[in-house]
Amino acid sequence: KAEAEAIEKELLEDYRFGRQQLIEIWGHACAVAVTKAFPLPSLPRKQPTVLVVCGPAQNGAIGLVCARHLRIFDYEPTIFYPKRSVDPLYRDFTTQCEKMDIPFLSYLPTEVQLINDAYNAVVDAVLGAEAELGEGRGPCAGILATLKHVRIPIVSLDVPSGWDVEAGSSGGISPDVLVSLMAPKQCARRFLGRQHFVAGRFVPYDVQKKFELNPPEYPGTECVVDL
Amino acid sequence: KAEAEAIEKELLEDYRFGRQQLIEIWGHACAVAVTKAFPLPSLPRKQPTVLVVCGPAQNGAIGLVCARHLRIFDYEPTIFYPKRSVDPLYRDFTTQCEKMDIPFLSYLPTEVQLINDAYNAVVDAVLGAEAELGEGRGPCAGILATLKHVRIPIVSLDVPSGWDVEAGSSGGISPDVLVSLMAPKQCARRFLGRQHFVAGRFVPYDVQKKFELNPPEYPGTECVVDL
Repeated sequence: KAEAEAIEKELLEDYRFGRQQLIEIWGHACAVAVTKAFPLPSLPRKQPTVLVVCGPAQNGAIGLVCARHLRIFDYEPTIFYPKRSVDPLYRDFTTQCEKMDIPFLSYLPTEVQLINDAYNAVVDAVLGAEAELGEGRGPCAGILATLKHVRIPIVSLDVPSGWDVEAGSSGGISPDVLVSLMAPKQCARRFLGRQHFVAGRFVPYDVQKKFELNPPEYPGTECVVDL
Repeated sequence: KAEAEAIEKELLEDYRFGRQQLIEIWGHACAVAVTKAFPLPSLPRKQPTVLVVCGPAQNGAIGLVCARHLRIFDYEPTIFYPKRSVDPLYRDFTTQCEKMDIPFLSYLPTEVQLINDAYNAVVDAVLGAEAELGEGRGPCAGILATLKHVRIPIVSLDVPSGWDVEAGSSGGISPDVLVSLMAPKQCARRFLGRQHFVAGRFVPYDVQKKFELNPPEYPGTECVVDL
């Protein structure tokens, strides 16, 4: 976890990447991963619906960008974003989705069957590496409890919500698809789902080498690769 | 031209897109277009070199992002960026390229043959729609004079430098490839090169409709399409 933070710090401070830029790159890559995991013609439901659940911090903002690109890729995303950040950066990403007429749910049905019936998949952009927000009675604990019982496939961004970044799961959600940002975190070893994508192509070579990220080969101009 | 400005204004003010975000999206799309126009295995020179010439304003910043992504796509870009903007946004995009060890030329050879021999193609990110900067004795007039005599293919971003956005060329450069941002400008009718890409997939549907952009069909998750 400390390493992931060190990489992000280097990108932001030394390379002068912007947060807006990184979140756009990551969110776009996540949407591309969703299209690879669930191609439009393969979806079991008539409508290409996807539920994107966004947490209060950076992982949630990546979810918002992911939803916007899914809309552009002809999916029908719906967003659940209960704890909105006051950070103007996140507010702008929210406005982009609202103005594009992506529906926002005002609450998450506790009756899990309603979610199973309405959507083809759920994107879990709740916590990522910010695990402490979901613990015990944290603001996201209720969402995690619902996601744990969902039967449609879950796509988790970076770190499945509720998992420890290093130790992994302990009775938490079991995503079908994991999208690691920059490089897989330690907990990815405990991931047992069917597809694991890495979205780290934009990371400069020197950073990859310094942190020994051993990046996979990305074909063509692809921004993600299935390990 | 007024229409292009109105669209950009709507994206920035109503949709709350950020300049950093738009420049990243456009620069990435331009790099993808270059890979389609000049695939790595097709390049005539041993090294996959590309010269990216960047002007002082937004078009130049898009060129910087394009160069960064070309590097990631295993090309060897070299940047010529003589009039650096003091805008921190543009400075950050410059730092990203510098830190990735993309070489910057300190001057453009006036001996055109040196350019023809060293590079497979030139990306013209000099002026775009900001045509007045290149006129007469403007800061970019010398660059345009050199580019006019270059024999390797030129890829122009949005509006070939020196062209009028509406009227088009009058003895200016003749790009082989044009990458229109958002939608083709009027001058694109005068474009006689071999490939014309549009990079406007990210533009929200309502904006496309309102301004009657008639977007082309983008296959899969492609961000550009060859018209």
